[in-house]
Amino acid sequence: MPNPTAAMLVIGDEILSGRTRDANMHYLAQEFTKHGIDLKEVRVVSDDRAAIVGALNALRGAYDTVVTSGGIGPTHDDITADCVAEAFGAQIDVRADAAALLQAHYDARGIEFNDARKRMARIPDGATLIENPVSIAPGFTMENVHVMAGVPAIFQAMVASILPTLTGGQPLLSQTLRIQRGEGDIAGPLGELAAEFSDLSFGSYPYSQNGVFGANIVIRGADGARVDAAIGRLAALFPEA
Amino acid sequence: MPNPTAAMLVIGDEILSGRTRDANMHYLAQEFTKHGIDLKEVRVVSDDRAAIVGALNALRGAYDTVVTSGGIGPTHDDITADCVAEAFGAQIDVRADAAALLQAHYDARGIEFNDARKRMARIPDGATLIENPVSIAPGFTMENVHVMAGVPAIFQAMVASILPTLTGGQPLLSQTLRIQRGEGDIAGPLGELAAEFSDLSFGSYPYSQNGVFGANIVIRGADGARVDAAIGRLAALFPEA
Repeated sequence: MPNPTAAMLVIGDEILSGRTRDANMHYLAQEFTKHGIDLKEVRVVSDDRAAIVGALNALRGAYDTVVTSGGIGPTHDDITADCVAEAFGAQIDVRADAAALLQAHYDARGIEFNDARKRMARIPDGATLIENPVSIAPGFTMENVHVMAGVPAIFQAMVASILPTLTGGQPLLSQTLRIQRGEGDIAGPLGELAAEFSDLSFGSYPYSQNGVFGANIVIRGADGARVDAAIGRLAALFPEA
Repeated sequence: MPNPTAAMLVIGDEILSGRTRDANMHYLAQEFTKHGIDLKEVRVVSDDRAAIVGALNALRGAYDTVVTSGGIGPTHDDITADCVAEAFGAQIDVRADAAALLQAHYDARGIEFNDARKRMARIPDGATLIENPVSIAPGFTMENVHVMAGVPAIFQAMVASILPTLTGGQPLLSQTLRIQRGEGDIAGPLGELAAEFSDLSFGSYPYSQNGVFGANIVIRGADGARVDAAIGRLAALFPEA
């Protein structure tokens, strides 16, 4: 059975303007790979209602799971929750369960639970909350869409919360051979080997170090014995590696 | 007149599996912002023909300029050039001008210009070449789509080659105020200011440092005097900043 598929939607002008370098895509890619979930597509869009709703609807229809990152804070540009509600045709308002979490958090710290902070309790009807152990304001899951904060520490905690709820597949195993030859020398034999081991995936990632060209060849697959066999054959083809 | 729009398509299993952390999106975002080109969307897809062709056709129709990154090397998984040809309905084969560049490069180094290396000279009919001063194998421009290597040093050199050919807009100016208050305290006054200065864009980027919460407020716009005025008003609202 093929692994479950996933997509990610990164939301935020700050990524597209180059102000902030996204860290969540790389993190999610690694976590999903470990759990046998195939991340197939990532989109990054700005804080724009039509762009967010359009991307949400395209991705949630095409993949088993969608994770979003960003746009769930208290400021006027945080519109992700409302866009998710719109995409699903759901009602949205300040919800009692989320508001109670935040109220208790702020009360304990003598901080006013003002209107801006109440925005963070806007949760679409029908969604379940995702715990935020860092700053309490929850994410939420609406059908196959998991809505998470953009701040990396919070995003990572939320990923940890939802992973046990997702059906995983066979984790992808991989082995790497570093070959100090130009990719052009490697490509021919590598292509033939890839055709022979068509159940595995072969990637070639070139590097240049002190003027010497080489490539890391990564062979991936769910069956460790097959990956071992293929990497052994590759090593025999390039004995200097 | 609004600024020209752009999208980026990052191609490669290695990004989606978490093996490699993409560096090109952040670089392109910064360069385009400097040149007044609005990067509106980024997509990351795997080395899959249907996924690449589909994304290319969606993006090239929706934005003024599209930049791709990755998949133009000599190995069997490098299929970007063929996908671009398919998206445009163009013929593709080893093209004499690209082959001549590579032949001269390899001849000078006593390296065989073999079939794998000839793959890097596959250029769709009608495309113009993009210079690669690092490793010679060219990128190419097909109408509004600019096809570039994924290796960051080469990607950056190719971006430098095409930037002068693109129509820029007004570079976005920005000023940042660091406010050591929770976003929930900032959000109300910030939202009112953003509504008043509706020609500018206001972003709030929270941080937490040694347990103290704060946010960097970034105000962006093409008119420096307006940005100055808005940041002055913001500073007056939060005199401790």
